[in-house]
Amino acid sequence: MEATEKLHTAQFLQHQLHEIVTLLAKQQLEMSLVQRGPATNHELVETVLHKQHHTRLREKFALLHPADIAFILESLPLDQRKAAWDAIKADQDGQVLLEVSDAVRHSLISGMAADELASVAGNLDADELADLAADLPKRAMLRILRSLNSTERTHLNAILSYEDDEVGALMDFGMITIRDDMSLKAISSYIRKLGKLPSHTDKLFVVDGHNRVKGVLPLQRLLTHAPSLHVAEVMVTDFVVFQTDQDTGEASRAFERYDLISAPVVDQNGELQGRLCVDSIMDFIREKSDEDLLSQAGVTEEEDLFASVWKSAKNRWGWLLINVATAFASTRIIGLYEDVILQLVALASLMPIVAAMGGNTGNQTSMLIIRSLALGQITAANVQRLIRKELTLAALNGTFIGLIMGLLGFLLYHDLALAGVMATAMFINLLVAVIVGLSIPLLRYKFGKDPAVGTSVILTSITDSMGFFIVLGLASLFLLGK
Amino acid sequence: MEATEKLHTAQFLQHQLHEIVTLLAKQQLEMSLVQRGPATNHELVETVLHKQHHTRLREKFALLHPADIAFILESLPLDQRKAAWDAIKADQDGQVLLEVSDAVRHSLISGMAADELASVAGNLDADELADLAADLPKRAMLRILRSLNSTERTHLNAILSYEDDEVGALMDFGMITIRDDMSLKAISSYIRKLGKLPSHTDKLFVVDGHNRVKGVLPLQRLLTHAPSLHVAEVMVTDFVVFQTDQDTGEASRAFERYDLISAPVVDQNGELQGRLCVDSIMDFIREKSDEDLLSQAGVTEEEDLFASVWKSAKNRWGWLLINVATAFASTRIIGLYEDVILQLVALASLMPIVAAMGGNTGNQTSMLIIRSLALGQITAANVQRLIRKELTLAALNGTFIGLIMGLLGFLLYHDLALAGVMATAMFINLLVAVIVGLSIPLLRYKFGKDPAVGTSVILTSITDSMGFFIVLGLASLFLLGK
Repeated sequence: MEATEKLHTAQFLQHQLHEIVTLLAKQQLEMSLVQRGPATNHELVETVLHKQHHTRLREKFALLHPADIAFILESLPLDQRKAAWDAIKADQDGQVLLEVSDAVRHSLISGMAADELASVAGNLDADELADLAADLPKRAMLRILRSLNSTERTHLNAILSYEDDEVGALMDFGMITIRDDMSLKAISSYIRKLGKLPSHTDKLFVVDGHNRVKGVLPLQRLLTHAPSLHVAEVMVTDFVVFQTDQDTGEASRAFERYDLISAPVVDQNGELQGRLCVDSIMDFIREKSDEDLLSQAGVTEEEDLFASVWKSAKNRWGWLLINVATAFASTRIIGLYEDVILQLVALASLMPIVAAMGGNTGNQTSMLIIRSLALGQITAANVQRLIRKELTLAALNGTFIGLIMGLLGFLLYHDLALAGVMATAMFINLLVAVIVGLSIPLLRYKFGKDPAVGTSVILTSITDSMGFFIVLGLASLFLLGK
Repeated sequence: MEATEKLHTAQFLQHQLHEIVTLLAKQQLEMSLVQRGPATNHELVETVLHKQHHTRLREKFALLHPADIAFILESLPLDQRKAAWDAIKADQDGQVLLEVSDAVRHSLISGMAADELASVAGNLDADELADLAADLPKRAMLRILRSLNSTERTHLNAILSYEDDEVGALMDFGMITIRDDMSLKAISSYIRKLGKLPSHTDKLFVVDGHNRVKGVLPLQRLLTHAPSLHVAEVMVTDFVVFQTDQDTGEASRAFERYDLISAPVVDQNGELQGRLCVDSIMDFIREKSDEDLLSQAGVTEEEDLFASVWKSAKNRWGWLLINVATAFASTRIIGLYEDVILQLVALASLMPIVAAMGGNTGNQTSMLIIRSLALGQITAANVQRLIRKELTLAALNGTFIGLIMGLLGFLLYHDLALAGVMATAMFINLLVAVIVGLSIPLLRYKFGKDPAVGTSVILTSITDSMGFFIVLGLASLFLLGK
């Protein structure tokens, strides 16, 4: 779908947003003035004004691309968002719901009745419905299912039967299939009869009598070869196919590697089930990277900028509670060594540095491992070399940062023994940090779990407690009772 | 370009990698055996064996897609990588260099002579050359420039004149331009005469006599409309255009929003300069998100898995040194209050918790702000509401986590005053953390800087020192001298 503005810029969107906010604010203001007026005229005037604004907003939204409307809705606070949503035409509703973020979609759907939702869904394809399915209330979903024809219902059930991380869940059914005994001329007139190709159609799929994919016919070839030729002579037979149960991450890397626009999706018997397009893959990559970034900061899921405070709090507390627990656990080590600190209070200000640097170096290692695992670059053949390299690096880092630690410790407290202990503790903790930073993601990956999840929390709690333990332990062995 | 395997899977790549590693290992082994043999036959046998393996590797690589070769090279340790690189055909060299990561590219180029590099570059388009330009030695670059014809040189200079984050730097010149007075029939025969369309050609650009874009003709429309119609009757006039100096991040969001495959790029006079394709955008998104993730962990740039230890160390030390410095600075606060700790040693184990929780909540806030800024969702109109919401949330979080802190403190030390001080300190530090987490990215953004860079480090150093300061300050005011 093309946008309705020749020059797309962020300024354009900001400008639209500004105009809509102004309209909404006027509406709110006039409403409140009306409510202060004499009670008799109240409802009448309210209705007139409301209609007037409603029409203006409607006209504004009708000119915008659904993705732009989605952007504007996401940028609006809850009350204004509801008002704006009311003004969006029923035939745009569905596309807009598809484009908004999950969190904002919840806020929009929660205000809609089951029959309203069912009519919205009427304009959507099976693969689009599948995207919404998880967010729709049961009653609306039942109504929608009843309104579908049998092909649509089969398609919808097919998509819903796959896990979120399987290719089948991302496919659509916009493929055009042809036979290899047709002439290019026949194909051209077939396409002309169709009148319209689904978006992202860069190739047609050539299937046999059992619906198995034998080749693909890129539109390019259709355009550049003589019309008298047959599909079998022109089609490409070495092409990329995906399987319905293949991992989406793997598929997205294939799209990047081979610069694909669309590709057939087949089941285990090689029968064509659907197609995968670059727009779904791009959404997938964006969502995955946002998720990775937010989960690093302990925000469990995508958050509506204007979700109620309570909702946001629930989204963030899980992680904060885990953090409180691990922080308490690791600082209990300090509690055990209180007498050491009383004898040498300098340790209180020096040991957090050792703990923090452990966390930092460990995170550097684990992040590189996590990323390399995601790219599939770590194999049984090279993992040992990699471990050796990281350990060598850790020893080097430990020596370097350890010396700095010792030097600064000596400059502050003029105590050579203390400086030596701090340098040694730093060295040991950096080694521990890298071992932990290597082990957690590699082990999680080996046992089939997402190597990124929780690695940072576990790592930090280990490097913190080890940092405190090593400093205080070494101090009690070598520095006390002198 | 299509891959050479029907079913692309990660297993396929792992299998190829395994076979190549085996070949390389054999080669290494036999070489070392030969070197132990009698010195007379030495060179002869070495040459024969070398040729034999070289041929086998060559055959293997010739069947692989450049992107797959790139993947394999990235997964190989340095010595094997060099051996494999020697076996890759000269006509594939250029494409492979384009596909490998920056770090691995350096390792490959560093071993090549200037004339070798110049001949590799001979097979590349101007936009591809531009991608490599930064990594090529000056001498090779001069040779390459001399070998280009004037159009290619103009194209290359055009791309190199743009900043890395401008659309112009990412564009290519594979566009097909047509006039609006041609018939679709004429266009079709024009395309047939071309024989081949550049990859990602989903539309032709309609230009006027001044090379200004008047519309686009999607191949879809060419295929579905009567050949007798004229371009002017069929072309789409509301389409997305980018400007050469537009921000690439903005362009990538437009690609996602409008599901684009290719789009024209114009200069300030509206004259067509090139085109932007979804494959470049996808690479851009992937690189940017990798960068964001790695910079969170303080890895400055993309790192070759098998870079030498020294190179890796240099890549990671910058950040670690900053971390040592901030850790020392924030713990100096503790040094100032050593007498307080001596009087109440429990503080030594409790204060790191307050400091750590400040960092965690502050990071949650800043990460959401950074992401929303990147998506363009924060505007002058809504920023105040957003700040109010985050502050309310901070007060709620502070009360909740503060109570937990007080409770646990009391359970450990049975001291009500201490528990009260710890709860209050936690409350205040979480408020400080959120204020800092809001301010840093918003201020950096306001002054035109990347809001993500360094935010986490500055934030953590502030929340740490404030955490220590608040706990120790409150303790010295309310708990000592009792």
